[in-house]
Amino acid sequence: MNRFFIPKDWISGDSVQLRDEPAHQICHVLRLKPSDHITVLDNTAWEYEVELETLSANNVYGKVLKKRLSPGEPQLKIALCQALLKADKFELVLQKGTELGVSAFVPFISERCVVKSPTQSKVRRWQKIVQEAAEQSGRGLLPTLHLVVSFAEVCRLTDRPAILLWEEETDRCLRDILCHSPFTGTKSLSIIIGPEGGFPIMEVKYAASKNIAVASLGRRVLRAETAGLATLSAILYAVGELG
Amino acid sequence: MNRFFIPKDWISGDSVQLRDEPAHQICHVLRLKPSDHITVLDNTAWEYEVELETLSANNVYGKVLKKRLSPGEPQLKIALCQALLKADKFELVLQKGTELGVSAFVPFISERCVVKSPTQSKVRRWQKIVQEAAEQSGRGLLPTLHLVVSFAEVCRLTDRPAILLWEEETDRCLRDILCHSPFTGTKSLSIIIGPEGGFPIMEVKYAASKNIAVASLGRRVLRAETAGLATLSAILYAVGELG
Repeated sequence: MNRFFIPKDWISGDSVQLRDEPAHQICHVLRLKPSDHITVLDNTAWEYEVELETLSANNVYGKVLKKRLSPGEPQLKIALCQALLKADKFELVLQKGTELGVSAFVPFISERCVVKSPTQSKVRRWQKIVQEAAEQSGRGLLPTLHLVVSFAEVCRLTDRPAILLWEEETDRCLRDILCHSPFTGTKSLSIIIGPEGGFPIMEVKYAASKNIAVASLGRRVLRAETAGLATLSAILYAVGELG
Repeated sequence: MNRFFIPKDWISGDSVQLRDEPAHQICHVLRLKPSDHITVLDNTAWEYEVELETLSANNVYGKVLKKRLSPGEPQLKIALCQALLKADKFELVLQKGTELGVSAFVPFISERCVVKSPTQSKVRRWQKIVQEAAEQSGRGLLPTLHLVVSFAEVCRLTDRPAILLWEEETDRCLRDILCHSPFTGTKSLSIIIGPEGGFPIMEVKYAASKNIAVASLGRRVLRAETAGLATLSAILYAVGELG
């Protein structure tokens, strides 16, 4: 069933009114008809099964048939802190990270970043990518997309426990870290992934001094955009959230 | 250190001669000089550290300093059988799958595939993507890229044990399957992933009748190109090959 995140005030009791882009999608792209069903989400973790009643390009009216807590939200809240990457790579991380189950994206600038902070229109594009991926993959909440911060801010502010993935780490691997306190049984954690050129050792030492675990992803060097998705998949698998 | 897969007969005793694309890369793109070091690989799982001696655009000569078994090969051999996808998605699977550690790609045609078999020039492009990703990520062997086959051929010929990932499966998840015979301790396995539109139930039943396990990836619906990468990451993590 087609899913749409909509503003909370479009739902009133068991009536739903959709406008703007969702109304356009329903009428002109999907060409749905009265009595077809859709799912709407108000970003409160609930989802509503709606039967369409009257449709026009500007206004679609429907009736709520059922309401349930969305089953698509992982129990573990993961913040993916990702150094800025070239446009297509960063968008890939947003799309795939949302499908896999990220609860917040924190873009940041690291010493070796070659990409500048995004324009407002780029940020709107990012939000759209996240929303479409959340709708398609069956999420119940939209991942939060934070403003771009500095590496020092990530180290200071991000949720603990936190892991920074570093291709030059040789002592501790992701598995060692996840099997021990404070990671076992945690309800939230942060993953920190560097830019295309990797983290310089100074940044890694700084993170370690702020109580962030540093881990390797094994013997193959993953590209920056692959590292986050592999880490997410591994962690979600480890906690029983990926199959 | 820069890595190059080269034909085996370019290495003779402790002398190496590079031609064609690798020689061009070394001279004109990387602008390496005599006494710089590179790593060459002959696709036998060995890697050779080479000191460059004389360089021209057509011929680069060097001397082997050290030879060792490449540490970048996973112990577990995974064949990723992937239904054909639109060009950019399939190329993403090849690139990321190679980085993560796939040993063979088996492209196949499923009932809901909307993409035709690739042209020869497309296959050459795919091989180049695989080789570049193998060089960049530190693989010791090039993943094999098989010819396109039918779904029935995948079910008949692919290495066992094998898992087909299906978004409509509700009984068994990937984790259940990996924890039990014949998957525990296996040295090789196959993953089968459908096209954008998913597998029809008839194909899933056919696979099950051929002793292929059917598994879910959990409560979120992953896109076709995400499913393989998430499955690979989860399996490699489970066997200690991803950090």
